[in-house]
Amino acid sequence: KINSERLWDSLMEMAKIGPGIAGGCNRQTLTDEDAEGRKLFQTWCEEAGLTMGVDAMGTMFMTREGTDPDALPVYVGSHLDTQPTGGKYDGVLGVLGALEAVRTMNDLGIKTKHPIVVTNWANEEGARFAPAMLASGVFAGKHTLDYAYGRTDLEGKSYGEELARIGWKGDEEVGARKMHAYYELHIEQGPILEAEGKDIGVVTHCQGLWWLEFTLTGKEAHTGSTPMAMRTNAGLAFGRILEMVQDVAMEYQPNAVGGVGQVQFTPNSRNVLPGKVVFTVDIRTPNLDKLNKMRAIIEERAAQICEEMGVGCSVEPVGHFDPVTFTPELVSNVRNAAEKLGYSHMDIVSGAGHDACWAAAVAPTTMIMCPCVDGLSHNEAEDISPEWAAAGVDVLLHAVLETAEI
Amino acid sequence: KINSERLWDSLMEMAKIGPGIAGGCNRQTLTDEDAEGRKLFQTWCEEAGLTMGVDAMGTMFMTREGTDPDALPVYVGSHLDTQPTGGKYDGVLGVLGALEAVRTMNDLGIKTKHPIVVTNWANEEGARFAPAMLASGVFAGKHTLDYAYGRTDLEGKSYGEELARIGWKGDEEVGARKMHAYYELHIEQGPILEAEGKDIGVVTHCQGLWWLEFTLTGKEAHTGSTPMAMRTNAGLAFGRILEMVQDVAMEYQPNAVGGVGQVQFTPNSRNVLPGKVVFTVDIRTPNLDKLNKMRAIIEERAAQICEEMGVGCSVEPVGHFDPVTFTPELVSNVRNAAEKLGYSHMDIVSGAGHDACWAAAVAPTTMIMCPCVDGLSHNEAEDISPEWAAAGVDVLLHAVLETAEI
Ligand SMILES: NC(=O)NCCC(=O)O
Ligand SMILES: NC(=O)NCCC(=O)O
Repeated sequence: KINSERLWDSLMEMAKIGPGIAGGCNRQTLTDEDAEGRKLFQTWCEEAGLTMGVDAMGTMFMTREGTDPDALPVYVGSHLDTQPTGGKYDGVLGVLGALEAVRTMNDLGIKTKHPIVVTNWANEEGARFAPAMLASGVFAGKHTLDYAYGRTDLEGKSYGEELARIGWKGDEEVGARKMHAYYELHIEQGPILEAEGKDIGVVTHCQGLWWLEFTLTGKEAHTGSTPMAMRTNAGLAFGRILEMVQDVAMEYQPNAVGGVGQVQFTPNSRNVLPGKVVFTVDIRTPNLDKLNKMRAIIEERAAQICEEMGVGCSVEPVGHFDPVTFTPELVSNVRNAAEKLGYSHMDIVSGAGHDACWAAAVAPTTMIMCPCVDGLSHNEAEDISPEWAAAGVDVLLHAVLETAEI
Repeated sequence: KINSERLWDSLMEMAKIGPGIAGGCNRQTLTDEDAEGRKLFQTWCEEAGLTMGVDAMGTMFMTREGTDPDALPVYVGSHLDTQPTGGKYDGVLGVLGALEAVRTMNDLGIKTKHPIVVTNWANEEGARFAPAMLASGVFAGKHTLDYAYGRTDLEGKSYGEELARIGWKGDEEVGARKMHAYYELHIEQGPILEAEGKDIGVVTHCQGLWWLEFTLTGKEAHTGSTPMAMRTNAGLAFGRILEMVQDVAMEYQPNAVGGVGQVQFTPNSRNVLPGKVVFTVDIRTPNLDKLNKMRAIIEERAAQICEEMGVGCSVEPVGHFDPVTFTPELVSNVRNAAEKLGYSHMDIVSGAGHDACWAAAVAPTTMIMCPCVDGLSHNEAEDISPEWAAAGVDVLLHAVLETAEI
C-alpha cells in the first residue's frame, strides 16, 4: 500500500501554486504558475531518482529505469494544468499519484522489468488553448505540431510562443517514444461512484466529443434607436441556439450531454446589438453514431435559426475525439487489483476526455477513477477524501506493477 | 450658412484619433485616445477665441463671450467619446457642429447677448463606464460625483482614477453652471428621416430607458461528466431570458425596444458550465407607464425562468432615464429655422439617449437630428453625407442665434 499521508501532502503543496480565489487552483497551461508547478514536480521526481525528458510540446516524461534494457516503458500520468477556476485534484491526482506509486516502489525496493515513466501531459484542459488534450493529441498523431503551436488564447497569444516564453519547450520529437502501456488515474468528475458508494471506477470506455465553434454575424446597431423589425440580432440567435442545444441533448437521452461554456459578444457594449457572437458548443456521448448525429442536427438547426433571422452562421470544429474503448487486459488488471486490495468497485464510462483517450490510439491503455464530492469538477469547490485518493493510487500501483512486471 | 467644407474637414481630422478597425472610431471614454481628441478640440476652440473651463467630471466648457455681462450662456454641444466600434459622427457632429456655428459667427462678426458655450460632455456612450450620459447626469443632479467616480470598466478601473490618469479632472464644481438654454445636434441613429426623405428631425421627445444588469448564479460544472439532470445551467437561463426580452418588446409594440448588448460568462471556459452570467438588458419606449411595466414584467419573468432552473437571479438597474419632453419654445425655434432655411423637416422622437435628456432637467433644452445611412449607428460603418451635416449645423446656428439674441 502507498503512503497516503505523503500523497496528500504533495497534493496540498502543489495546490499552493496558482491558488484560486475560492480554495481551488488557477494554474492554466503555459502560465508562470504552470512553469512553477512543473519545477516543483521536477524536483520531487529527481529526488525520487527519476530522470527527465521533455518533448517539443512541453510534456514531461520522468523515467524510473527497468531491469530489462530492451523492455518498453509503462507510462503512468495525467496533467498538472488546471481550469481558470479549477480544483486541486483534476489531473493532479493522476500525476502525483503516479509519483507516489514510484516513491512506494522505492521504499519497498521493488524493481520492475519495464521502466516506468511518470508523465505530465501539457495542456490537457483546453481552457486557455483549445482543443483539450492537445499535447497527447500531437503525441498520438491526431494533430500536427504546427497546428498545436498555432493555437491561440483569447488574447491572441500562441501555444508555441508561450511554451518558449515559460522555458519548457523540450528537444524530444513529439510521439517518438513507444509505450508498452499507459495508465491514468483521475477523479470521476461526475456523480456516479459517490452515489453508488464505490471506491474505484474501473473505466471501460470514454465518451466521444465534438467542440463546435460557432461564429454568428449580425448587424451591429444601436439598442435604442434601431426598431425591432430592423434588427439582425446575433445575440438573440445565440439565445435560441442555447435552447436548441439543450433540446437536442434531451432528445438523445440517456447518455448524452450538450452545453455552452464560452461566449464572446462583439463589441460587448450595453447599447450595441452584437455584430458578432462566437461560442463553443460541447456535445458528448459514448455512442459514435449518436455523437455524429447530434453534431449534424445541431449544425442543421443552428443554420435554420440563423437563416430565419438573417444572421450569418459558420461552424468550425475545434475539438473532437471518437468514443474510446480501453484495452480489456489492462481493464482486468485494474478490476483485479481493486478486488485483491478489497476496494469496492464498478465499471464506468468516463464522461470527461482524458489524455488516455489519445494514448489509447498508440498503446494499450486504461484508466482508474475515484469518486469526488457531489460529482463536482471544473469548480474550485471540487473535493475528494484522502481515503478515496489513497485507494485510487493503491489500485494504480498494483495494476502498473502487473504490467511492468516485478 | 455655415462653412460645410471646414465642418467636414474637422470631422475627418477628429476621426483620425482613435481610429477603428473598419473605418470608424474607437475613442472610448478616458482612454489615451480620448485625451488626444480633447486636446485637438481644445486647440481648435482656442483658435476660435473660446476660453476653457473643465469640471470635476471632465466635461469641457468652451466659452464665447456675450455682450451682456449678466446674461446666462446658451450651451451647445454633445460628446466626443465613442463606442469601441463606433462611428465618426455619433456625438462628434454635435460638438464640432457647435464649434462650426461659432466659427461662422466669428467669420460674420456676429455678436450675441448671451455667451455661447461649446460643450463636450464626458462619457456619454456608457460603453466603458455605465451608465451612459454620466457627466451630464451628475451635472443635472441625477447622480452624485462619488457614484460616478466609483463606476468601473470591465477591467475594474474606476472613472475617478482614469479621469485623473489622463489629466482631465477639472476644478469646476459639477453642475454649478447655470444655463439659459441647451441645444444638441445629433445624427438620428435610426432609419426614419432617411426613409421619409427629410433633412432635419425636429426632436420633440426622447424615449426613456432602463438598463437592468442581471447576475445569474448557476453551478460551475464539467460540460462532459455532469449529467443533464444535475446541471444548474446559468448559461441556458441567459438564453431563455434573451428570448423572453425579445417577446416582451414585441408584446409592447409599437414604439418599444428591448435587447442585450453585453454579457460575461464566468469562468468562460469551453468545458465548464458557467457558474455566473452577468448581462445588461436595455429596454426603451417613449411612454413612461409602458417603460416601467416592461421593466416589471421582464424582472418577473426572469425570476420565474431562473426559479424553475434553480438558478440564482439578481437585478441591479445600472442606467435609467424617464421619457423626456423637450422645451416647446426651443422646439419651435428649430422648426422655424429649418423652415426659414428651406430644409425639409419632420417632428421626431429620439430613440437613443443624449446629454440633452439630462440637461432638460435643469434648463430649457432641445435637439436637432440629421439622417444617417440605413439608420445605422454604434457601428463603424455609420455614415452621413456632408450635405446632411451642413443642414443640421445651419439649423443649429439659426436656432441658437434666436435664443442667444444677436
Ligand atoms: N478531465 C478533463 O476535465 N479534461 C478536460 C477535457 C474535457 O473537457 O473533457
Ligand atoms: N446617442 C447615443 O448613442 N447615446 C448613448 C446612450 C444610449 O444608449 O442611448
